[in-house]
Amino acid sequence: MFEFECQTRQGQARAGRLTTPHGVVETPVFMPVGTHSTLKSMTMGHVAEAGAQIILGNAYHLFLRPGTDLIEAAGGLHGWCGWQKPILTDSGGFQIFSLGEFRQITENGVQFKDPITGAKHTITPERSMAIQRALGADIIMAFDECPPYPTTHQYAEQSMHLTHRWLERCVAAHTNTAKQALFSIVQGSVYEDLRQQSIAFCLEMDTPGYAIGGVSVGEPKHLINQIVDQVAPQLPEGKPRYLMGMGEPIDVLEGIHRGVDMFDCVHPTRVARHGSFFTFDGRRNIKNGEFRDRFEPLMEDCDCYTCQHHHTAYLRHLMRIKEATGGTLLSIHNVRFMIRLAAMARTAILENRWTSFYDEMSQRLQATPLDREGEVVGTP
Amino acid sequence: MFEFECQTRQGQARAGRLTTPHGVVETPVFMPVGTHSTLKSMTMGHVAEAGAQIILGNAYHLFLRPGTDLIEAAGGLHGWCGWQKPILTDSGGFQIFSLGEFRQITENGVQFKDPITGAKHTITPERSMAIQRALGADIIMAFDECPPYPTTHQYAEQSMHLTHRWLERCVAAHTNTAKQALFSIVQGSVYEDLRQQSIAFCLEMDTPGYAIGGVSVGEPKHLINQIVDQVAPQLPEGKPRYLMGMGEPIDVLEGIHRGVDMFDCVHPTRVARHGSFFTFDGRRNIKNGEFRDRFEPLMEDCDCYTCQHHHTAYLRHLMRIKEATGGTLLSIHNVRFMIRLAAMARTAILENRWTSFYDEMSQRLQATPLDREGEVVGTP
Repeated sequence: MFEFECQTRQGQARAGRLTTPHGVVETPVFMPVGTHSTLKSMTMGHVAEAGAQIILGNAYHLFLRPGTDLIEAAGGLHGWCGWQKPILTDSGGFQIFSLGEFRQITENGVQFKDPITGAKHTITPERSMAIQRALGADIIMAFDECPPYPTTHQYAEQSMHLTHRWLERCVAAHTNTAKQALFSIVQGSVYEDLRQQSIAFCLEMDTPGYAIGGVSVGEPKHLINQIVDQVAPQLPEGKPRYLMGMGEPIDVLEGIHRGVDMFDCVHPTRVARHGSFFTFDGRRNIKNGEFRDRFEPLMEDCDCYTCQHHHTAYLRHLMRIKEATGGTLLSIHNVRFMIRLAAMARTAILENRWTSFYDEMSQRLQATPLDREGEVVGTP
Repeated sequence: MFEFECQTRQGQARAGRLTTPHGVVETPVFMPVGTHSTLKSMTMGHVAEAGAQIILGNAYHLFLRPGTDLIEAAGGLHGWCGWQKPILTDSGGFQIFSLGEFRQITENGVQFKDPITGAKHTITPERSMAIQRALGADIIMAFDECPPYPTTHQYAEQSMHLTHRWLERCVAAHTNTAKQALFSIVQGSVYEDLRQQSIAFCLEMDTPGYAIGGVSVGEPKHLINQIVDQVAPQLPEGKPRYLMGMGEPIDVLEGIHRGVDMFDCVHPTRVARHGSFFTFDGRRNIKNGEFRDRFEPLMEDCDCYTCQHHHTAYLRHLMRIKEATGGTLLSIHNVRFMIRLAAMARTAILENRWTSFYDEMSQRLQATPLDREGEVVGTP
């Protein structure tokens, strides 16, 4: 049982409803990422309280640890991690290809070494479908190759065709269609002609949803916007559109403006653990001296647990002395911020005031406080 | 406004009610420790949900970071950390004396170097009272010297007399008696004669509560029980008794049995971060293979957030891949366990079945599963 309804459109921006076996998701939606079946530094209670409608897991990481068998024995990811609302699993193609020398791509699939144990594994499109079937997420992703940026036209083209052949195999192998919706992924790097070919191929496969992949791999943001400008309007009105891995506040706003419905990113929790918090007027670093005695919440009018219970000076103290609770509290704020931003966008679209909302919010979000340059943002 | 009522006594075990400016505490009570104004890995929401009635802070640590001025500006510790129920601050004598070569004791007080910044500070009994007044906890502790174990009789005696002279100065300096109750601390190491002298001195000072200090500093448990056996019955019926730093489940049970009302320890959260969880049948390490596919909560009939939402196999996975959320979830369980153990003891006392409760529980808690020896329990 999987349905998508586009309720309203203003320009390209859409408000919709996605029905899945584990419940309804109102779009546009930000999906917090729980790569290893937990959000980093947050409990599922925090995630639910932040208003998350759907979360992500990563099939590749979960296949390695704790292993597909164990999650299947627990009744799938829902039974495993205690999250009863919708879940989407990424196939993990991006993570496997990031292994560099540890992996080898063939027509059949990818061979790689577990970076921790050294064990050798092969994931093929068929195996990815079997893994994701065992994990039991409501939405599963095709197993694709995700080339980095920059990539030559030649490599991007070869890679795209491989992704297309793998997509056909994924579609053929995916038989659990009543319970799981398989999304195809439009590739083609930054090349307009390739993106056109990839759109055509994915549309032909007629999957229940479409992702725009191969973004957020190092390319400048104006190129991402160009890609989305090209791809999104060509996707069918009645199916959801997912821009993979894009999750800075401004990215979500720009994506919605161009017709995207679904977003995910580790960004909100990752920067939180390094002391950054979101406001509608840009991102700030809590370690800045100005926050030393700021006995106000991180953001005015924020309804998150953190802002309802703590002031900035206290949170700054926790981050400075490296108390893990500080990262938890900032993560809660940032995740709630992203979820609320998407929900506010939805309301604006439904209330026919998208353009003014977008104009104002895109200006505010891009405010770059002086402290921004001093931020230390590490790897996940 | 500070009152203590001993409601019932069975043998030495007492059930009581402690009234403070920030609310009533039912005893026996386990007090979770938030040294730096947060529990490690837990939010205050978790602490409240675990049923904590009162939490601890450490005046010495908070004096260094973030500094007394800032906490005072926030309206004291309650306004600072967002915990609106009772708070107790330890003076931090134990932590200062643990600095070793970085500190120097004189009649006046202690000079020490901040181990992080190298800055020199002096804390005297008067300064400790001023700091704790600024922090604004409901219960504050005398500034004492806490000798390690083993200590010679000679050193223990000198140290005790110094602690007594400092206690007189604390009592004289503590003028905020309407809002803060100052507890004296019985010292004397493992020497019965010294403990007798210290009891007499503290009783003469007639403080609103009494702590048994100088325990949990490395001595064997039977000596602690002997000390408590000696000291507790000599303390007045109508005042609360606090056994400092003792917080393994069996310690709390033995302390209650000997007439102690209040307990604190970092133990439950510290061992949690290393994978240990409490059950009524002893402590277990979640990394043991037997828990790999245990799709049951950590403990039967546990009402903590963790046991209500997650099974053991999932928590084991989080600990194995070093996800901080694992430590959070185990901490929640262990803290709730301690609070519940004290609450169950209270009910047993009130219902006139303490002896059977104690007999059964002390046997069960001391069960030592085979896995216990393999545990890795690190420093905080």
